[in-house]
Amino acid sequence: MAEAPSPTPLLKDELDIVIPTIRNLDFLEMWRPFFQPYHLIIVQDGDPSKTIKVPPGFDFDLYNRNDINRILGPKASCISFKDSACRCFGYMVSKKKYIFTIDDDCFVAKDPSGKQINALEQHIKNILSPSTPFFFNTLYDPYRDGADFVRGYPFSLREGVPTVVSHGLWLNIPDYDAPTQLVKPLERNTRYVDAVMTIPKGTLFPMCGMNLAFNRELIGPAMYFGLMGDGQPIGRYDDMWAGWCTKVICDHLGWGIKTGLPYIWHSKASNPFVNLKKEYNGIYWQEEIIPFFQSLTIPMECTTVQKCYIELSKQVKEKLGKVDPYFVKLADAMVTWIEAWDELNPSGNAA
Amino acid sequence: MAEAPSPTPLLKDELDIVIPTIRNLDFLEMWRPFFQPYHLIIVQDGDPSKTIKVPPGFDFDLYNRNDINRILGPKASCISFKDSACRCFGYMVSKKKYIFTIDDDCFVAKDPSGKQINALEQHIKNILSPSTPFFFNTLYDPYRDGADFVRGYPFSLREGVPTVVSHGLWLNIPDYDAPTQLVKPLERNTRYVDAVMTIPKGTLFPMCGMNLAFNRELIGPAMYFGLMGDGQPIGRYDDMWAGWCTKVICDHLGWGIKTGLPYIWHSKASNPFVNLKKEYNGIYWQEEIIPFFQSLTIPMECTTVQKCYIELSKQVKEKLGKVDPYFVKLADAMVTWIEAWDELNPSGNAA
Repeated sequence: MAEAPSPTPLLKDELDIVIPTIRNLDFLEMWRPFFQPYHLIIVQDGDPSKTIKVPPGFDFDLYNRNDINRILGPKASCISFKDSACRCFGYMVSKKKYIFTIDDDCFVAKDPSGKQINALEQHIKNILSPSTPFFFNTLYDPYRDGADFVRGYPFSLREGVPTVVSHGLWLNIPDYDAPTQLVKPLERNTRYVDAVMTIPKGTLFPMCGMNLAFNRELIGPAMYFGLMGDGQPIGRYDDMWAGWCTKVICDHLGWGIKTGLPYIWHSKASNPFVNLKKEYNGIYWQEEIIPFFQSLTIPMECTTVQKCYIELSKQVKEKLGKVDPYFVKLADAMVTWIEAWDELNPSGNAA
Repeated sequence: MAEAPSPTPLLKDELDIVIPTIRNLDFLEMWRPFFQPYHLIIVQDGDPSKTIKVPPGFDFDLYNRNDINRILGPKASCISFKDSACRCFGYMVSKKKYIFTIDDDCFVAKDPSGKQINALEQHIKNILSPSTPFFFNTLYDPYRDGADFVRGYPFSLREGVPTVVSHGLWLNIPDYDAPTQLVKPLERNTRYVDAVMTIPKGTLFPMCGMNLAFNRELIGPAMYFGLMGDGQPIGRYDDMWAGWCTKVICDHLGWGIKTGLPYIWHSKASNPFVNLKKEYNGIYWQEEIIPFFQSLTIPMECTTVQKCYIELSKQVKEKLGKVDPYFVKLADAMVTWIEAWDELNPSGNAA
């Protein structure tokens, strides 16, 4: 359905696009009309001696493992290797207020009218309009053109709260876990749901890092993608971990997370057998991780994201450390991450 | 988007359609292909001497105020007069497992492909598939054709819980309160959002009674539409009240509520000046009612809807009675409602 043209600020000088990759970035050609005005931060995973080709005309910085080690020194241990979790290094070195991150197997999708979707523009709309985490609006995002708060929505809640995360979705290949991929190899997401909504306070969600924007200045320090990949007993839970931590911190600090539009076109399903090997611990541990996040409370004294995150790391060590020693290591890495963040972002120490 | 044909049971002998009205039911002509197999319960509001014409070929029972008074005796005091809240009498006299209720200014809507929407069929699909109130699924209802649980959704929660309410939406005239109607007299809802979703546990929503289905056997006793209209200081909060009570009881008993599809075509905006007079107390009181519902707890001993509802009435009297004496009267009416319900439904006393 057509919307009135909206004078959305482009945030050209306030937003970085973070892309983790192991290959040449030909996928950027399709995004050129939308991404070219922005600065890209490319985080090269795997062998640092390999050359990654970036199509001409893009403004970018590329960081490989050697760069990460040089910049962070011993604290580089908190950045995953051989896993797209390494992307969070890009969040840390950015100097911008907003981040958009996208996978290199994601292409421009079309809306039902056949028009190419400017995913970044929709993320910016989402993130610059408030969220409503305290009460559900049945007509979805009340700040969208043609929508509003419905009868029975308390007036005191209609100003909303700052939106710090915009979670976009995927047409074609849905973001399924390995067991679901194996059971439904041919399932494609063809349903374009024309909605954006706030995830209510107190509700956890599975945050996917494929097509994601956030306010780095406000929530950046919580966007740690954990220890995954090389040398770790788990993969494909990097974005999930970041999502759970981010959600409980947003609930504590009174900020909002939106999900829904924009869609990207996810081109290729990853190998379900490889995924199963990466996921099996996560699938099992998650049954304890979710109740942990659902029941934890962050003390009132934690008034910055950093303080919340350090508190979270303590509770992870204490409670999830009993599930597996991996969580003790992860809790330590969470502290290292915050130390590294503050080192690289000396002025952004108080949210 | 097209869905595979689904062998949805029609529930022909298990569902009543409840319609509150003050006029001839010509609107049924448009619904004939969808409603004719079902039994209708028509609750005639206002002057009982007036004759309401029902188009031929429909199977119905009609109850006017004289019938309500005769059937309930002194307990008829809990049923509103001169307000569509009277519809809940229809829930009480039904003998069926499911109820669908619709306003007589609601017509058949069309989906984006131009096809007429069988709203009742979609409600039945919603109510016969489980809900997922404990964790948010970013691809919406995971039980729909072409959808599933996404990566990171705990497997232990994938069976879901019984869905007891299906809340449908409205194209054309949105369900706005009087102030919003006054400010945006020309706004129309043209956005067809192709989604059904569970409202998460712990989150309240504004339940509209215009296009609503529920499992009467499970949640019926909580679907009391309160004291509105003639002799009461408030109107247009009947469905809201039922929604808040129903939601906290569903959260307590572990049941789910879905919202989204199906859409009906809402033809005519009610008079905003009249609405403002009905709503102004509600708009004010709601600022205290919402925190009351958000913070209340129902004791573990309350294992049936009736017990939950009686407990709720006590807390309403105690806490909201301080806001206005109206709530003392409402709390008493809540008790009367349950007594009348149990009298008319002697075997359904334990959920």
